[in-house]
Amino acid sequence: MASIFTRIIEGEIPCYKLFEDDRVFSFLDINPVSMGHALVIPKQEVDYIFDVEDDLFQHLFLTSKRISKAIEKSVECERVSIAVVGLEVPHAHVHLIPIKEMEDFSFSNNKLSLTEIEFQDLAKRIRLNLKGQ
Amino acid sequence: MASIFTRIIEGEIPCYKLFEDDRVFSFLDINPVSMGHALVIPKQEVDYIFDVEDDLFQHLFLTSKRISKAIEKSVECERVSIAVVGLEVPHAHVHLIPIKEMEDFSFSNNKLSLTEIEFQDLAKRIRLNLKGQ
Repeated sequence: MASIFTRIIEGEIPCYKLFEDDRVFSFLDINPVSMGHALVIPKQEVDYIFDVEDDLFQHLFLTSKRISKAIEKSVECERVSIAVVGLEVPHAHVHLIPIKEMEDFSFSNNKLSLTEIEFQDLAKRIRLNLKGQ
Repeated sequence: MASIFTRIIEGEIPCYKLFEDDRVFSFLDINPVSMGHALVIPKQEVDYIFDVEDDLFQHLFLTSKRISKAIEKSVECERVSIAVVGLEVPHAHVHLIPIKEMEDFSFSNNKLSLTEIEFQDLAKRIRLNLKGQ
């Protein structure tokens, strides 16, 4: 069965999309740790990040860098942090999490609750900043 | 003043080294979240990970991938996770943290206390597995 992320890529499950090319896909995390929390995933369904082949692996991280730069311009934060845990969804994904202080970097913190309009506005801001690069 | 990591690279401060080439350097975290917790850093002293230029950025992550594969073979774990927070030491660094479950991925967990011999043995095992790739 296709992973939940593959179903998002294929449009079966809706998402707030930030970016897509032939190899990678990015969208807002629906249970954000902070405002601007995004995911970047390979389109190829590989469970473990370190099993992604080198060329795609490098493209995934370079794309994550570009999206982080756009997130920085779109929300109030000190830095965008990176997390890859790999025990939740069996489809490799890079978390990009804007933080203001060390304590913000935790998956056990309460998640933000955003309205659909807030998600849409945020995704639009990030997409605009991505285009402006 | 040179960052603590630059002083480690230059050998002024001792470390349990795992790997070095002309552009990147890797060593065991001295306050490990888990057994095998390592850092990978660019030799160039850049504070923020996303300010590292693209080519070096990609090399840093590809090296992190190779080191993670060696860590996996050296300690008991389910996965090696990736974390880049960036608010501690002003010299970009990738944390590679072996985990067994989601809860292991937290910087607020108690740190492991290893003896010098344990650190040395662990670094040696990882270096051997790195060579065997």
